[in-house]
Amino acid sequence: MSAEGAVRVLKIEILTTGDELLEGLITDTNSAHIAREVLPFGVSVRRVTTVGDTLEDLRDALLEISARADLCVITGGLGPTSDDLTLDALALAAGVPLEVDEALWGEIQALYRGRGRVPPSNRSQARVPRGGTPLKSEVGTAPGMRLTLNGCDFFAYPGVPEELYWHCEQTLLPHLAARLNVTLHRQILRLCLLGESRLYDIIKLIDLPSEVRVGYQALGVEVRLKLSSPSRPSLERAVQLISAAIEAEAPGHLVSLTDRSLADALIERLTAQGLTAGTAESCTGGAVSAALAAIPGASAALLGGVVAYSNEVKRAQLGVSASTLTTHGAVSEACALEMASGARAALGVDWAVAVTGIAGPSGGSPEKPVGTVWFAWAGPAGVTAERRHIKGDRRRVQSVATHEALFGLWRRVREAATPQEVMDV
Amino acid sequence: MSAEGAVRVLKIEILTTGDELLEGLITDTNSAHIAREVLPFGVSVRRVTTVGDTLEDLRDALLEISARADLCVITGGLGPTSDDLTLDALALAAGVPLEVDEALWGEIQALYRGRGRVPPSNRSQARVPRGGTPLKSEVGTAPGMRLTLNGCDFFAYPGVPEELYWHCEQTLLPHLAARLNVTLHRQILRLCLLGESRLYDIIKLIDLPSEVRVGYQALGVEVRLKLSSPSRPSLERAVQLISAAIEAEAPGHLVSLTDRSLADALIERLTAQGLTAGTAESCTGGAVSAALAAIPGASAALLGGVVAYSNEVKRAQLGVSASTLTTHGAVSEACALEMASGARAALGVDWAVAVTGIAGPSGGSPEKPVGTVWFAWAGPAGVTAERRHIKGDRRRVQSVATHEALFGLWRRVREAATPQEVMDV
Repeated sequence: MSAEGAVRVLKIEILTTGDELLEGLITDTNSAHIAREVLPFGVSVRRVTTVGDTLEDLRDALLEISARADLCVITGGLGPTSDDLTLDALALAAGVPLEVDEALWGEIQALYRGRGRVPPSNRSQARVPRGGTPLKSEVGTAPGMRLTLNGCDFFAYPGVPEELYWHCEQTLLPHLAARLNVTLHRQILRLCLLGESRLYDIIKLIDLPSEVRVGYQALGVEVRLKLSSPSRPSLERAVQLISAAIEAEAPGHLVSLTDRSLADALIERLTAQGLTAGTAESCTGGAVSAALAAIPGASAALLGGVVAYSNEVKRAQLGVSASTLTTHGAVSEACALEMASGARAALGVDWAVAVTGIAGPSGGSPEKPVGTVWFAWAGPAGVTAERRHIKGDRRRVQSVATHEALFGLWRRVREAATPQEVMDV
Repeated sequence: MSAEGAVRVLKIEILTTGDELLEGLITDTNSAHIAREVLPFGVSVRRVTTVGDTLEDLRDALLEISARADLCVITGGLGPTSDDLTLDALALAAGVPLEVDEALWGEIQALYRGRGRVPPSNRSQARVPRGGTPLKSEVGTAPGMRLTLNGCDFFAYPGVPEELYWHCEQTLLPHLAARLNVTLHRQILRLCLLGESRLYDIIKLIDLPSEVRVGYQALGVEVRLKLSSPSRPSLERAVQLISAAIEAEAPGHLVSLTDRSLADALIERLTAQGLTAGTAESCTGGAVSAALAAIPGASAALLGGVVAYSNEVKRAQLGVSASTLTTHGAVSEACALEMASGARAALGVDWAVAVTGIAGPSGGSPEKPVGTVWFAWAGPAGVTAERRHIKGDRRRVQSVATHEALFGLWRRVREAATPQEVMDV
């Protein structure tokens, strides 16, 4: 049975619970996660229902879903407090008693060892609706619960995202793989500054193995390209074809074969090549260096930076000449070049990247509208500059400019490397 | 009729639509927004349902909701493409025809003037299910639609957040105010680095006017405190009481009476007092200056900063002495003090803030575990330092450290100001 054929076969729904969702105190990100995880199996979620911590509302929702769906993931309501009602609602809907499983209670208590005494209220987490199967977790103390109701398989998981993610990976996906008789191999590529439509145009021309499924997820100006296949060789072949096509059409935009961000890939490459880097920022105000510093181990490559917001700081800290600022202005090719060269010298780094632009909302002019940004990169072989016009509000201009600055550095460091080094994405 | 009494009166549900939600490509943030907006009227959302772009699923959901609820907000499915089916589903569920309203079509075309020709496909947005009322928008081109079905009032809005927010404010809330006979005055206070439980403890001791409702929303280490009241004097009284209580218990933590962030409030205060600021950052890597630079108009107060990630940059750019680095290390009170003083001199600013710490995951030691961060603030009257132990992963340490750095500056600038200036939050 192919994964494609399963689309119509298995009806999956999601039930999320919690007053905090219905009061808008938190946003439900769990449903999107579950939806993305099951999609490679050829299954898409039919409906998501959110109800509050009210026993009758939960019971009604469970009964309605059981009449429509084959499988339902429930999130939330498994904690130890009185408004955690998922187990109660399952028992009520199924018309079965809820009994404490003493062995399970022992295991929950064991998880607490070393953290002090188990609060007695946690005993409620050891209750099992008759006929249900507890799903033990290695993350957190709340077990999940599986129960079949009117022919619909309910998988109840904690609402804490990291616990939910663990359960998806460890109990839900293996169940789907067995039930649909599909073993899925998965790989996530990461691309940067390549529009989804452009990426789609490139990929649709590739003759990919038919069993490989491709999914897209945008993360700002980065895109996660999710590949899955029942066969490892065909997955590997797809990765090879896609890498080659992107390298031919948009060199450098594929920044990772293992779902690492541009900043992460850049720190890794700089570190591997024994190179150091620094920044000189005006309109991004430190966001470029902060993006690099967010990566664990950044200190191996990032030595420092200068945020030169005012002209005086550009002059004093980076050595931008007064005549450049007077003649060309701070947002100019000449200023960007001097900022990059100045930062490279002042910080004593192999590579320096400079950004100067107009983030808005004010400060634009007909010649230099809001969104005009000059970049320069100074390296061992000299300094080069590029200009971009970035559309959008201040937040977007700063965010895209940050990525453009890093991407320009990534491309230049990559081009300066040996061909062998380029292959090791 | 009090807002409290309305809780049991009006049953509200939300229906969100779109395959992109069920495939996890985007996360539904609209529902949380709607829920937060209606809550001050004493109304909480009973259920949220998400279905895909399938006519039958949409119709079924509409009919089910109409049997349960008094009012339902629909989001999405009002665009011009073939998978935008909200109007079709409303007509199908109500058993009425869908007819193009030529006057509405004229208005949609008028909105396009100056942007070129209207795509003919947009004519589908001028369709009205018989008995429905188009809801014109000043944001975007898709009108909303109101239709009563089985006694349930459906308000269909575009899924684009900014268009949805406009409709909530301009058509949904006025409808609720009229229907519940409640006029609500609202104000949002912003607090920083004050735990929700601590905040709750402070507020529960205040004898607030009984008709004032208080809602909390956490945004990282900031909290939005939402007050609403049917009476303006009681709202103003509540703001006064809460401000005084927080000023007494946790001075400075209330950073804005008008929902501005700490960084925003800080830029405003510095600018108003004619002061300039700069940064010296190690473990935050530029995030402190970037947070300030994110605020429109930041250039009036933020002159620049130094990201001194390596010891060499701390020495060369900030003048930290070699003996300090050798004797005390980079994460020390002495180093933070020298960084702040060095930045104040090098950048020529009135106030400089310095951060140096261990963000992790590596680099910790028994004496200086991961999360140890030293801060210093140099101002006209001298330089002072503080240490924090911040729990969590690298991302959290950097984020909290960024806020602590800004908050320390906020408090000091505030304390240095005249009493009159402090009052003008």
